[in-house]
Amino acid sequence: MKIVIEQDDREPFYDAISMVHNLDLNFERKRMKVGDYKFNDIIVERKTIDDFCSSILDKRIEHQVENMKIESEEKFIIIIGNIKDRKVNIHENCILGKICSLVYKHNIKVIQCENDEQFLYILKNLYEKKVNKIK
Amino acid sequence: MKIVIEQDDREPFYDAISMVHNLDLNFERKRMKVGDYKFNDIIVERKTIDDFCSSILDKRIEHQVENMKIESEEKFIIIIGNIKDRKVNIHENCILGKICSLVYKHNIKVIQCENDEQFLYILKNLYEKKVNKIK
Repeated sequence: MKIVIEQDDREPFYDAISMVHNLDLNFERKRMKVGDYKFNDIIVERKTIDDFCSSILDKRIEHQVENMKIESEEKFIIIIGNIKDRKVNIHENCILGKICSLVYKHNIKVIQCENDEQFLYILKNLYEKKVNKIK
Repeated sequence: MKIVIEQDDREPFYDAISMVHNLDLNFERKRMKVGDYKFNDIIVERKTIDDFCSSILDKRIEHQVENMKIESEEKFIIIIGNIKDRKVNIHENCILGKICSLVYKHNIKVIQCENDEQFLYILKNLYEKKVNKIK
């Protein structure tokens, strides 16, 4: 099964990661208004832990969440990296509180992982689950 | 506001962690059939990363999820510890795939954190969000 996922053209080129080929992931790069990755009705926002922290501080995350809510019923934020490794100056309780808020109040599905390889595997796994659900 | 949370009596005594007192968390220990922590309609299953891995291998997680589904609409699994630090022999893709399955197929809210202090903060945060929602 060839997997084609829309990818925002400001996201990293993943071709250098051999896992992309092993997983048979194909990205269609384009400028996306909402989210970073999209397939069927699923929208995925990818955030490194530092990007996630910054977006809490400058409140960017609020707008992104509102836009995702308008755009799709199935919204994921995938956070890459551990809280303890953050470089951004923010208390860990702010991060945890925001994750609780996203998951509980906004009904966003948040998945945390440790590196890009894990992120790519999650994308593929969600894709397969979605496609099997449709079938 | 005094926070009282039901806690399964096989769970750790958290009194030694000063944070429990700082957060004003009070646990009512009792034998629980489903989940490890409960307040209002929220059920929380607490799993260390190794416990989570073991429960995938021996399929215990499947039963726990089914029981949680019967018991409550608001189901959380909080995983403590990072995937890379696991001692249980299981491929990381199995762990990630199970997290995707819980979040996407079973509509369980999964939150990952790094230690017991973070876990306790999440419990308190969810409690406050729930209570404010009811008000």
